[in-house]
Amino acid sequence: MPDLIPGNAVIGQSGGPTAVINQSLVGVVQGLRKQGAGTPGSPIKKILGMRHGVSGLTKGDFHDLTDLAHDRLELLAKTPSAGLGSTRDKPDAAYCERIFDACEQHDIRYFFYIGGNDSSDTCRIVNELAKEKGYELRCFHIPKTVDNDLMENDHTPGFPSAARFVAQACMADFLDNISLPGIKINVIMGRHAGFLTAASAMARRDDRIEKSTDGPQLIYLPEVPFETDRFCNDVAKIYEEKGRCHIAVSEGISDKDGTPIGATLIKGAQTDAHGNVQLSGSGALGDQLSNLLKDALTPAGGKQVRVRADTFGYVQRCFPDQSVVDMREARGVGKYAARLAMSGDLDGSVAIKRVHPLGSGQPYAAAYERVDLKAIAAKTRHMPEEFIEGHHDVSRTFMDYIRPLIGELPLYERL
Amino acid sequence: MPDLIPGNAVIGQSGGPTAVINQSLVGVVQGLRKQGAGTPGSPIKKILGMRHGVSGLTKGDFHDLTDLAHDRLELLAKTPSAGLGSTRDKPDAAYCERIFDACEQHDIRYFFYIGGNDSSDTCRIVNELAKEKGYELRCFHIPKTVDNDLMENDHTPGFPSAARFVAQACMADFLDNISLPGIKINVIMGRHAGFLTAASAMARRDDRIEKSTDGPQLIYLPEVPFETDRFCNDVAKIYEEKGRCHIAVSEGISDKDGTPIGATLIKGAQTDAHGNVQLSGSGALGDQLSNLLKDALTPAGGKQVRVRADTFGYVQRCFPDQSVVDMREARGVGKYAARLAMSGDLDGSVAIKRVHPLGSGQPYAAAYERVDLKAIAAKTRHMPEEFIEGHHDVSRTFMDYIRPLIGELPLYERL
Repeated sequence: MPDLIPGNAVIGQSGGPTAVINQSLVGVVQGLRKQGAGTPGSPIKKILGMRHGVSGLTKGDFHDLTDLAHDRLELLAKTPSAGLGSTRDKPDAAYCERIFDACEQHDIRYFFYIGGNDSSDTCRIVNELAKEKGYELRCFHIPKTVDNDLMENDHTPGFPSAARFVAQACMADFLDNISLPGIKINVIMGRHAGFLTAASAMARRDDRIEKSTDGPQLIYLPEVPFETDRFCNDVAKIYEEKGRCHIAVSEGISDKDGTPIGATLIKGAQTDAHGNVQLSGSGALGDQLSNLLKDALTPAGGKQVRVRADTFGYVQRCFPDQSVVDMREARGVGKYAARLAMSGDLDGSVAIKRVHPLGSGQPYAAAYERVDLKAIAAKTRHMPEEFIEGHHDVSRTFMDYIRPLIGELPLYERL
Repeated sequence: MPDLIPGNAVIGQSGGPTAVINQSLVGVVQGLRKQGAGTPGSPIKKILGMRHGVSGLTKGDFHDLTDLAHDRLELLAKTPSAGLGSTRDKPDAAYCERIFDACEQHDIRYFFYIGGNDSSDTCRIVNELAKEKGYELRCFHIPKTVDNDLMENDHTPGFPSAARFVAQACMADFLDNISLPGIKINVIMGRHAGFLTAASAMARRDDRIEKSTDGPQLIYLPEVPFETDRFCNDVAKIYEEKGRCHIAVSEGISDKDGTPIGATLIKGAQTDAHGNVQLSGSGALGDQLSNLLKDALTPAGGKQVRVRADTFGYVQRCFPDQSVVDMREARGVGKYAARLAMSGDLDGSVAIKRVHPLGSGQPYAAAYERVDLKAIAAKTRHMPEEFIEGHHDVSRTFMDYIRPLIGELPLYERL
């Protein structure tokens, strides 16, 4: 075992919570305990949880996890959302100084932060500060985000469980849509990356691979510029053929200049009958697309076309029906970070890699790797081109990518 | 066995689908088959499914279920939403004449209709027409509605599974709310009856019985007149104390005159800065309540209070994680209707009764009973007073009522 500076370990959770973020927390705790943390002679004295991430750290607000009973830890691991509390604080240089000061003050030598690319950036800045000041601090970022938008990762913990919810919700909603036909829009999370919206394609039945006629028949991602006229035409075509249409839309769809569609539609609305519609509530984009289709598809003087919009909202990131692979991997990355910290590595982020490339025919397997913090920090990964088909669908490659992650879905029968 | 007129049986599904409505369909088919339907010598020749309810029946659009394989039937039973397709048609007298004509034309002597109070009314009218014309037709209504608003029933198939989704979604969302504090509104289905919104109380943890501090802390039902000022005060009180507030609101909340709050808020909005906000999309009520709270709770010149609203939408009625009790009972009422029809009863609706009264200390058990069609038809049941506590909570009696119906919920840990 390498020389380890004695001190405390601190763990925090940051950003939007997920259904498995506590698996990573428990993974770190278990990983450190396995190396003796909290026992006499161990370099790690205490394992402290930051309440509400760096916000709690700077206030000295901790939950001591050193001796939390095994059964409580295991129950915590299965509990959705961030058990320690999360934060939306994005530390600037001055804030990072305060974080560093708190580390010194509380004798913290091991720093673990579970979050997305902003959290990774916080780790990077704190880590550089510590180096500058000659203070030995081991800084590890542990990936988490339902948006699946971290560089270097095949996918990120939290995404498979959210994708599982989206697939099941879209499956149920498609069956609802064929039962009572009409046009149905579902707005799905992911402001800059379309992975979660793309997961709606898994709602398609056995023939879910390609060219399925099951819903959603149209999938709109933030990676593909959104054109409202083209959208109305796409919907009209399917609606004319089937008398119904099932649509998945990312909350982040934007026009060719990168302007979010919600904002575009508001501007349009000011000049027509809709008046000053606000975009401030979470149902707004769906409702606006819905109005757009009603106007475009209802024949002059005819009966109004039935259009409904649902916005999946927060439930998609925390619904307590986690993917088994996701639970295992979220725990795994936490344990791996603890092992790295205690085997001489000074800093880094843990990334999930796919062992066998897509299309190799090999069963799915994941491996964890240390990557540099700056490879992740403040960067955003988007859906690669090979995952996208045309302007309103995903590719077979994407289906091969996501299928092993989300676990078994319920089968269903259609008469 | 009584004298049974030979002919065909027809089964239809109507109104908003549920996660277990196909259980009832399969229950009828199995019940009829058990009595020999479709075999030589049986009075029932064919078992026909109406496509999209009475709309398909009048067009002669059927799916023949007489010989559907057992494994397909069992898979269909587990499939959410109406496998035969549903309809929103509310037949008037002339439409009912056409239904009756179709029955004569297709030699239908056994009529089963799965739906809510409108479907029950359709059964009643068709049944009376048949009697008038001296045509022997056995008409049975089978209960179904996530709103749980049918008279004579302790509860209705579909409600327990929808309640299970609401409880789990609120549980996950409450954990999200304590992780990233703010004010969160969830809008839940049930235009006239508050049962489904009330089910959100099951999201509260072990101490979920009464006076839990877990969310939702505030529950607004359509049965209690909604006052916007009182609502803002309720939220402000909890928000001041905890820095967060978790709220469940029925889509059907109305003021003391019975005017839906959505409409009231729109009127208000026309005279203030919000402009002509439409209520046409499903996220509108949540967004409007959200704006109301932002305005009321944000201190003058201060930072805007964080308020988010989600509208659970269609996914709550069909999510494929059904309650075990609900699956069993939905199948049970279908089988029971088939048995009634073949043992001499001419018409009726099947109702679910609770064998041991609430508070008896006996374990939950259900029994099925035939009740008169007119006892159910076109009537609406509301939350009884004993289920409601104050103007923003449910009672312990309600918790005792709902607990056995929705099945085991995931446990969770809080640090």
